[in-house]
Amino acid sequence: MGLGERGGWDKSESRYCGVETEFDDDVPRLLSFNLSSTGFDFVVAPLTDPTYRPSLIEADNGSSHVPPFAGSDLVLSPAQWSSHVVGKISSWIDLDSEDEILRMDSETTLKQEIAWATHLSLQACLLPSPKGASCANYARCVNQILQGLSNMQLWLRIPLLKSDDDSPDVDSDNLMDSWELWNSFRLICEHHSQLSVALDILSTLPSVNSIGRWFGEPVRVAIIHTDSFLTNARGYPCLSKSHQKLISGFFNHSVQVIISGKPLHSIPAETIGSAANQTDNNMNSTLRHPLRSYLDYVGYLYQRMEPLSEQERIELGYRDFLQAPLQPLMDNLEAQTYETFEKDSVKYMQYQRAISKALLDRVPDGEASAATTVLMVVGAGRGPLVRASLQAAEETGRKLKVYAVEKNPNAVVTLLSLVKLEGWENVVTIVSCDMRLWNAPERADILVSELLGSFGDNELSPECLDGAQRFLKQDGISIPSSYTSFIQPITASKLYNDVKSHKDLVHFETAYVVKLHSVARLAPTKPVFTFNHPDYSTKKNNQRYKKLQFEVPRDTGSVMVHGFAGYFDATLYKDVHLGIEPSMATPNMFSWFAIFFPLRQPICVQPGSPLEVHFWRCCGSAKVWYEWCVTSPRPSPIHNSNGRSYWVKASSNTEQVIVDSFRCDLGTRSKLRTVTDVLRHF
Amino acid sequence: MGLGERGGWDKSESRYCGVETEFDDDVPRLLSFNLSSTGFDFVVAPLTDPTYRPSLIEADNGSSHVPPFAGSDLVLSPAQWSSHVVGKISSWIDLDSEDEILRMDSETTLKQEIAWATHLSLQACLLPSPKGASCANYARCVNQILQGLSNMQLWLRIPLLKSDDDSPDVDSDNLMDSWELWNSFRLICEHHSQLSVALDILSTLPSVNSIGRWFGEPVRVAIIHTDSFLTNARGYPCLSKSHQKLISGFFNHSVQVIISGKPLHSIPAETIGSAANQTDNNMNSTLRHPLRSYLDYVGYLYQRMEPLSEQERIELGYRDFLQAPLQPLMDNLEAQTYETFEKDSVKYMQYQRAISKALLDRVPDGEASAATTVLMVVGAGRGPLVRASLQAAEETGRKLKVYAVEKNPNAVVTLLSLVKLEGWENVVTIVSCDMRLWNAPERADILVSELLGSFGDNELSPECLDGAQRFLKQDGISIPSSYTSFIQPITASKLYNDVKSHKDLVHFETAYVVKLHSVARLAPTKPVFTFNHPDYSTKKNNQRYKKLQFEVPRDTGSVMVHGFAGYFDATLYKDVHLGIEPSMATPNMFSWFAIFFPLRQPICVQPGSPLEVHFWRCCGSAKVWYEWCVTSPRPSPIHNSNGRSYWVKASSNTEQVIVDSFRCDLGTRSKLRTVTDVLRHF
Repeated sequence: MGLGERGGWDKSESRYCGVETEFDDDVPRLLSFNLSSTGFDFVVAPLTDPTYRPSLIEADNGSSHVPPFAGSDLVLSPAQWSSHVVGKISSWIDLDSEDEILRMDSETTLKQEIAWATHLSLQACLLPSPKGASCANYARCVNQILQGLSNMQLWLRIPLLKSDDDSPDVDSDNLMDSWELWNSFRLICEHHSQLSVALDILSTLPSVNSIGRWFGEPVRVAIIHTDSFLTNARGYPCLSKSHQKLISGFFNHSVQVIISGKPLHSIPAETIGSAANQTDNNMNSTLRHPLRSYLDYVGYLYQRMEPLSEQERIELGYRDFLQAPLQPLMDNLEAQTYETFEKDSVKYMQYQRAISKALLDRVPDGEASAATTVLMVVGAGRGPLVRASLQAAEETGRKLKVYAVEKNPNAVVTLLSLVKLEGWENVVTIVSCDMRLWNAPERADILVSELLGSFGDNELSPECLDGAQRFLKQDGISIPSSYTSFIQPITASKLYNDVKSHKDLVHFETAYVVKLHSVARLAPTKPVFTFNHPDYSTKKNNQRYKKLQFEVPRDTGSVMVHGFAGYFDATLYKDVHLGIEPSMATPNMFSWFAIFFPLRQPICVQPGSPLEVHFWRCCGSAKVWYEWCVTSPRPSPIHNSNGRSYWVKASSNTEQVIVDSFRCDLGTRSKLRTVTDVLRHF
Repeated sequence: MGLGERGGWDKSESRYCGVETEFDDDVPRLLSFNLSSTGFDFVVAPLTDPTYRPSLIEADNGSSHVPPFAGSDLVLSPAQWSSHVVGKISSWIDLDSEDEILRMDSETTLKQEIAWATHLSLQACLLPSPKGASCANYARCVNQILQGLSNMQLWLRIPLLKSDDDSPDVDSDNLMDSWELWNSFRLICEHHSQLSVALDILSTLPSVNSIGRWFGEPVRVAIIHTDSFLTNARGYPCLSKSHQKLISGFFNHSVQVIISGKPLHSIPAETIGSAANQTDNNMNSTLRHPLRSYLDYVGYLYQRMEPLSEQERIELGYRDFLQAPLQPLMDNLEAQTYETFEKDSVKYMQYQRAISKALLDRVPDGEASAATTVLMVVGAGRGPLVRASLQAAEETGRKLKVYAVEKNPNAVVTLLSLVKLEGWENVVTIVSCDMRLWNAPERADILVSELLGSFGDNELSPECLDGAQRFLKQDGISIPSSYTSFIQPITASKLYNDVKSHKDLVHFETAYVVKLHSVARLAPTKPVFTFNHPDYSTKKNNQRYKKLQFEVPRDTGSVMVHGFAGYFDATLYKDVHLGIEPSMATPNMFSWFAIFFPLRQPICVQPGSPLEVHFWRCCGSAKVWYEWCVTSPRPSPIHNSNGRSYWVKASSNTEQVIVDSFRCDLGTRSKLRTVTDVLRHF
């Protein structure tokens, strides 16, 4: 049934809403009452009679005892069980009790119920929250179960609870932050991908920063208790603004809502079926599910959400999807890739603005008709930057001579046709040549390039432009004139698990292009490496080393850092910039996703403890690579030592890294693939 | 030459003593002065002129500049370089300087010098101590070098320094504990096995606990500075008692001593060459190495050490050597193994004492001539416990009827011969049978077994005795009557690296039998699991769960926990016990080494922070295994979930784990291998 339609064509899991029920040994009746007559999509129901205890039964040894399960696969088909029931594990279990009998009973029951749920093909079971701060035995047992579990998800119930009191008496028995409990549990279970979180939403919410952490964790469901609802003027349940915002956030992250608890809002009779008479009302009241008004409200919140923008819809399929690193063996781009690339009109608008400003600075109004500016586009592709340059010339009334240097002979064919088609023959010279080999007939006033990766310099723009600047006049302008990379620590359970699933070192020491979505950004970004162009200094060096300290806001609580999100911002010319750094990202530009540098071991950072991280850009004779490590709160190993796992190939001709146009083009390709593949995807 | 002879036939590395020297571009002269004329075995000498700086040279780009090295492989053969010279890396380097030029120069120099040392086939290079508390860039660079290093060791120089002030202002710039520096460096370098420590011994030593940590770390050399020496009554250099103890500890752990610094003790002329005349003395003084008296003193300390005991000599080859876990496919023991086993007279003396006491309790003096005690030896092997039983009977004047149950038919042949040889026919009945299948003709008063592993229950003694107790009278006695396992956290770099070298999960989730030597025991042991025999309780269960908290003494400082050392203590009967728990180990018993439970990720524990660890003994239908994890200071994953990596095979016949004599015998075999292999080794 679902919560209704959100604008656009949303197929999110979060359309489905469940209800938590009591034990009922007549499951068909339970389903009929909760699903058919109302609008709930599934029930979260106990699988065993809660009065059952193994230790009271097994005194009679040897007999084959059957636990009092709610119903077998004969009363409901496995398909029905699977679509409509989430198994609720007996909530009395306490595997970390001091009472050994209770502990043993709990383990037996937990294993019996999961085995039964597996037999019924359930998709998920809800595990009760650990009873105390200690959960090692519970986690050990769940971990054993996870080792043999085929498809089922285990949702560990965790209250969304964090005291604002950040006094450092962590030793006190009062659990201050339920995230810590989750964190211990999942660390003991080694980030198992089938273990996720069911958050209990209470009437009081912790700080926004503290809640933010959960968006990087594998939260599958949010259980909203009826006593967390307020009452609106008409007597109906509603949620506080902050609760509304939280639930919208969950909807955006495919989290399903479950309603739990007794109805606490008695809806005035006259408001139900307003056009009906009194007797009808009575009948309606009998049939009506007691939690119907809570469900209606959640449906209202769902339908009220902003529809997805076109860009969001395109990017939807790429959310939190790790893209394989560059394939240096690939060569020339395909026409479709160029076409996709050229659709990012915002990017070319920015280039055009930058070129216009540069032309105006270069040629005073008085000389506009006499002076001709020599502009070279390095890596011209099918010509979008040539077009932007010519439009800038027209806009500013400056005369231009353009060299379009491109090594892909296929793209050159298109370029030549374009020149003829547009009548640019007198202005544009096509150079079908590898940049490194080109003997330029004159020097350029302006050198235009777009060789940037998601992390700025990661596609060897610095090395390419170091080589190309020999064509540039001493006072010439490079567009871009500089670029800077940025990083910030993130919680990203899904990305971490995806990297881990490869079970090797190489994938943990590789940077990935990824549309970040289900992540928690834990601190503002900080700049890493900057490159300026042109750069004529004698001891020029493209190696870099940066030490950075991040402070996670104190009210966030402890956090798990799975790695670092990387971005760039480029100054094309003066105040015209272009980039994806979140606080100043160019709007509506889709050519670049972020980059993700994983950590081999996620690092837990306590409140007030700084996170110190080191990034190196290393240059060898044949390749360029990054190394990274954390030194505080505790040192990690160096990642990607000597570029053993991940590198970008540079020229091997000389010790001095020089332009490698082959690589540069490949570099450009890497971000294009993103969009192309997305388009192919839909 | 070496420091002389220690008692016994010690071949320890620590016989060799080195001297730290200044730069000398005439290396043959340097060697001749320091080695030939005195008694030093090697020099630690700078490889490059300390005034050299790459940045001052390379302005002249393109020319192939040769750094001012001390001497080439033409003035000294690689064999000479290798045996006599440790390369001292330029001490001015500072890779974590704020000054970028200095940083780049340092990296260039470090890499040049190591490359040159590799060319000269040096065995080791001494790396200068990091200049500040931050060492990430230095460690990154060393780590890069380590990736490509074939055999050379890199010794990182670290002062042996720890402030006793344990005030928690860790943030202060004053480095309180040089161990922290080492720890950061090696974590960044991922515990690389070619990176080790050169400890600078200063005149003041930190606390004994704090020093103890270093015995679990890869310390290769101790550099003793001349100003750390005191002056004795005759004017000669000597060391304080605590320094003497430290140096003896180093000698015991194959740490080499290096003397460093200017001579600070002017030896009275008349004491040199006492029988010689004045001119001879003058000549001697000229030839005599200025640090000769320091070397003599170190040699005196070396020669003064206690000779190794016979047991120590036997165990020497097994120190810190991980023994492969049990091979459940192996079957019957060989005669040589039995023979070795039987040599551990201390063990059988304890059994005899226990049996004597049991006999006296069982049969009052008045009944001694009338009553016959039925004693069964379960797993009799070639009969050592039968002999101990008969000797106990003789000693106490009690009459005995012995059943010796043994399933190895080869051992039974020996047993039968023994009975004939000794004339035991009327007393001893040999039962050639699998314990599980034996239909005992009567019940035993006393059941004697020795099925213990290094961790007590780890060779399934509980399961075996559960099965055997059906032969025992209701008031019968089991020898042993109980046993308890113990653990303690240890620093064990070498063991950790040996486990890690297998590059798989299985080895990190396996317990090893090992003669612990180069380890730091960080806290007193705590008991883990206890088993009592016989046990007739109805809900008997051999599963166990124990949560333990260890407190590392505060003055130790931070420590690295690589895993847990395990031991056992068994009560044979009343006050007669047997075991290897260090504080109450049975002296001169060599049948068991300790057991080592590794951690997949070593855990750093800060002073005052408790270490919480959980151990489980899990029983399935066909196997028994341990799981373990740490939950504080931070949670580790569960090790060996479901016994996926390491287990002991039990019977698979029924859900109830029963006696599996095959396994029991294999169990016994495991500890025997230790000694047998050692004897084969020599």
